[in-house]
Amino acid sequence: MASGISRRALLAGGAAALPLAGAGDRASATTEHAATAHSPAVEPFDGVHQAGIATSPQAHAVFLGLDLKPDSGRDAITRLMQLLTDDARRLTQGRPALADTEPELATDPARLTVTFGFGPGLFRAAKVDSPVAPLPSFSVDRLDDRWSGGDLLVQICADDPVTVAHALRMVVKDARSFTRVRWTQRGFRRRAGAGSTGETQRNLMGQLDGTVNPTDLDRAVWIGQGPEGMRGGTTMVLRRIRMNLETWDAADRPAREFTIGRRLDTGAPLTGRAERDEPDFARLNTLGFPVIPEYAHIRRARVEDPGQRILRRPYNYDDGLTAGGTSDSGLLFASYQADVERQFVPVQRRIADGDLLNEWITPIGSAVFAVPPGCAADGWIGDRLLG
Amino acid sequence: MASGISRRALLAGGAAALPLAGAGDRASATTEHAATAHSPAVEPFDGVHQAGIATSPQAHAVFLGLDLKPDSGRDAITRLMQLLTDDARRLTQGRPALADTEPELATDPARLTVTFGFGPGLFRAAKVDSPVAPLPSFSVDRLDDRWSGGDLLVQICADDPVTVAHALRMVVKDARSFTRVRWTQRGFRRRAGAGSTGETQRNLMGQLDGTVNPTDLDRAVWIGQGPEGMRGGTTMVLRRIRMNLETWDAADRPAREFTIGRRLDTGAPLTGRAERDEPDFARLNTLGFPVIPEYAHIRRARVEDPGQRILRRPYNYDDGLTAGGTSDSGLLFASYQADVERQFVPVQRRIADGDLLNEWITPIGSAVFAVPPGCAADGWIGDRLLG
Ligand code: HEM
Ligand code: HEM
Repeated sequence: MASGISRRALLAGGAAALPLAGAGDRASATTEHAATAHSPAVEPFDGVHQAGIATSPQAHAVFLGLDLKPDSGRDAITRLMQLLTDDARRLTQGRPALADTEPELATDPARLTVTFGFGPGLFRAAKVDSPVAPLPSFSVDRLDDRWSGGDLLVQICADDPVTVAHALRMVVKDARSFTRVRWTQRGFRRRAGAGSTGETQRNLMGQLDGTVNPTDLDRAVWIGQGPEGMRGGTTMVLRRIRMNLETWDAADRPAREFTIGRRLDTGAPLTGRAERDEPDFARLNTLGFPVIPEYAHIRRARVEDPGQRILRRPYNYDDGLTAGGTSDSGLLFASYQADVERQFVPVQRRIADGDLLNEWITPIGSAVFAVPPGCAADGWIGDRLLG
Repeated sequence: MASGISRRALLAGGAAALPLAGAGDRASATTEHAATAHSPAVEPFDGVHQAGIATSPQAHAVFLGLDLKPDSGRDAITRLMQLLTDDARRLTQGRPALADTEPELATDPARLTVTFGFGPGLFRAAKVDSPVAPLPSFSVDRLDDRWSGGDLLVQICADDPVTVAHALRMVVKDARSFTRVRWTQRGFRRRAGAGSTGETQRNLMGQLDGTVNPTDLDRAVWIGQGPEGMRGGTTMVLRRIRMNLETWDAADRPAREFTIGRRLDTGAPLTGRAERDEPDFARLNTLGFPVIPEYAHIRRARVEDPGQRILRRPYNYDDGLTAGGTSDSGLLFASYQADVERQFVPVQRRIADGDLLNEWITPIGSAVFAVPPGCAADGWIGDRLLG
């Protein structure tokens, strides 16, 4: 259509543009100034650990799964991780990426974190021993390739959805010559500072989700031994778990509370009064049944040693509606643990072997990643593994 | 799988549940109390106008397009609107919907608004003269049925994505026996209170978007004459406009600024210094060309009489990535005006006939709705039109 007109007008514009040469530079100077003037919420990037794990969860996340192009070796991966580390370091600090095409969108980082994970395929390509293996399969799995696997994970979280969209775009642009997009999974939680019951978010089943998490991350989450390149790092499991909210709605409140072993309103264990009360798994009711049922989720998922617990940092997803009004929603279940085999797998196995929750949830995606430690101000993520 | 186990355990649970009878009631009492105790952000529901139009835009929106089932007449529509009005009235005030299946998700309305619009098909079904006609087609249109039309629009906006997900679910459940889902479109803007340049949001092209809007809504937006049933109401146009960000990135800053006629950093017109400065469309540069080009967007879209301007309340969308890394993103362009024909159509026609922006944007969805006025505390949306 009007593209003839447009070109003509642009040429006129081009001539008129002469007095404006350098406008781009001026713009980004203003931009950076605005950023400091408003002292926006910034999460540190460089450090012993990557950000986005111990970070108090932001309201929005996108998980990006990338596959290396064929024949990418250690050099290509190094170059890729140098580029992406640079993007992450700038964007998280409220500075535009190198050659940022929309620098103004970078000024409000809104607690942006960008976290990288390496899948088994990346280690294969780099000819380095992989610290993680694919997960075993579980009887409940109904996995779809569309949401599973991946050589490189980029987890982008921020309290502002525009910040997330922009960071995603910059990362994808720089990754494009080395990788193909395998999947993107977008999630959300209650906005920062909200929630009438303290800090714990509610998922789309209405449950307080996130009550029991490890507190001693040095034992439970960060890797303290083994090969040097992973020390200070961790591992990540990302499971896409669909909720069947239609049938869940048909369950009454007592059934729902028995399923988890906690109350819906306060999140207290069925044996207690407050969210943080310790559940009493031994207590029986007057009929001699356990108050927290044998197949309640919190009993199945329980790990007594706090140093062996997984760190759960889940996001909700809600992606569409069928004509009949059925939603496609659930949990982007992200967990971090020092050791997948010893910490995650036994819990997932106990859940798969019998958990009331299985009536309403189905794992449809699964991926596992080694999350390298953080890096020094002049380093890049993975440098001690691949460098 | 484990559903045998589950049923057995649930039965045990069922017996143990006896002492808990009435837990549901108790829970919702607690819930309502919590809502008032934390005085969450609430937008009024009842009033002369529907909320969600003059309301300062919330960070998240979902636009839901519904079609009436065949043979729905005025009675069915009345019943539907009574139900949905009741849902909206409760949820926006932080109270669970009737038979809310997740009452705890209703306690934090986060400035929730639920706004209804009636498409031409709804009026046909109700055998009432329609105040709106479908839009004429424009040369730039590449419309997809998947994002166009609809008998009933429900616009759900809130600052919290969990609130939006829950309200959507409640509305869809109650609409289900009367309607089919035609489309859902999810959008976002900078989170509330953010943005380094005052109130105006930036869209995904990086532009300040929303500078020039009418201030006298009684003239520009609210219908003040004609049939009684629409007085205090308005009309809404929803256009899904894809942005070609790949080619946009190839344009340099001067070209981008000429396209709009405003600067990227400050949003000032090319003839001014500050965002709110009046553009000087007559000013020529030293070469004799207009400083704001003939085909610049703000010149094409300009309406001199502020009382005839459309109220733009757009959201960004960003829905996925191809394997090659191309995003599907753009604007959910929502505008409200007293008269579609006289206010929206001429602007859209001038843009279609020649606007530099057309190089990078394509309308792929389009719908038009009559937005009834607000209602009294015992009324329902549309009561003066259909009741
Ligand atoms: C849609 C799927 C799931 C939902 C809705 C869900 C929900 C919940 C809820 C409501 C709680 C109790 C509150 C809390 O401590 O956070 C909980 C606890 C827990 N969940 Fe899940 N969960 C899901 C999947 C999983 C999976 C896949 C795992 C691990 C493989 C898991 C591991 C745990 C653990 C370890 C706890 C803490 C148990 C304790 O020690 O008290 N959950 N979950
Ligand atoms: C993706 C599509 C679009 C983009 C990115 C876009 C962007 C912009 C920008 C950056 C401005 C200048 C700042 C402001 O006043 O908000 C603007 C102004 C405006 N736009 Fe758009 N726009 C789009 C589509 C449309 C459409 C479809 C219409 C109406 C049919 C429209 C009507 C207007 C109007 C009326 C103004 C104010 C003009 C004035 O009086 O200064 N825009 N738009």
